[in-house]
Amino acid sequence: MPGTLSRLTDPQIEESLRTLNGWNRHPERHAIQKNFKFKDFNEAFGFMGRLALLSEKMDHHAEIFNIYNRVDILLTTHDADGISERDINMAMEIEKF
Amino acid sequence: MPGTLSRLTDPQIEESLRTLNGWNRHPERHAIQKNFKFKDFNEAFGFMGRLALLSEKMDHHAEIFNIYNRVDILLTTHDADGISERDINMAMEIEKF
Repeated sequence: MPGTLSRLTDPQIEESLRTLNGWNRHPERHAIQKNFKFKDFNEAFGFMGRLALLSEKMDHHAEIFNIYNRVDILLTTHDADGISERDINMAMEIEKF
Repeated sequence: MPGTLSRLTDPQIEESLRTLNGWNRHPERHAIQKNFKFKDFNEAFGFMGRLALLSEKMDHHAEIFNIYNRVDILLTTHDADGISERDINMAMEIEKF
C-alpha cells in the first residue's frame, strides 16, 4: 500500500488526480495538495491525529499547515524528487477518513 | 493566564522576548515565532498534541507548520491586529513543555 518511490509521469498524475476530489498539483512544486476546513480546531486536530497515525503506518509524512479550523496538506516524495505512488496512495487513504 | 487582547508596544514585545529563548518577531507580520526540531515525527507530533491541548485551554491557536520532525509555530492575536499578552503567555507555556 505505501507504493513505489519512483516518480510518476504527468499523465499518470493527471489520471490519479481525477479520482481524488479536491486534490490538485502545487503550482510551483512537484507536489499534490488539498486544503481542508473543519468546524473548529477540535475537529481539525482530530483529523490531524488520524493523519499522524496514517503517516507513521505508511512511513510517509505530509507537509501540514494548520491554523484553527484549517488544515492544508501537501504531499511529495523527496526521494523521487517528484510525485510518486506513495503520495497518491496516501491521498486516497486520507479521503477515506 | 490567557492575558489581555490589547496590542503590546514594541518595547513591551522586545522586553518579553528577552525571557523567551529562541522566539523572535516575524520579519513581515505582527507575530512572534519559533522553529522546533525533534528527533522524529513521533516526537514532533507528541509536542503538537500538547500544543493542541494548551490551545484549547487558552482559547488561543497558533499557526503551525509541520514537516516530519520540524514544527514551526507562529503566534499572533488577530483581534488585536498585533502581538498581545496572550501570545507572550502562550509562548511561555510552550517553553514549559
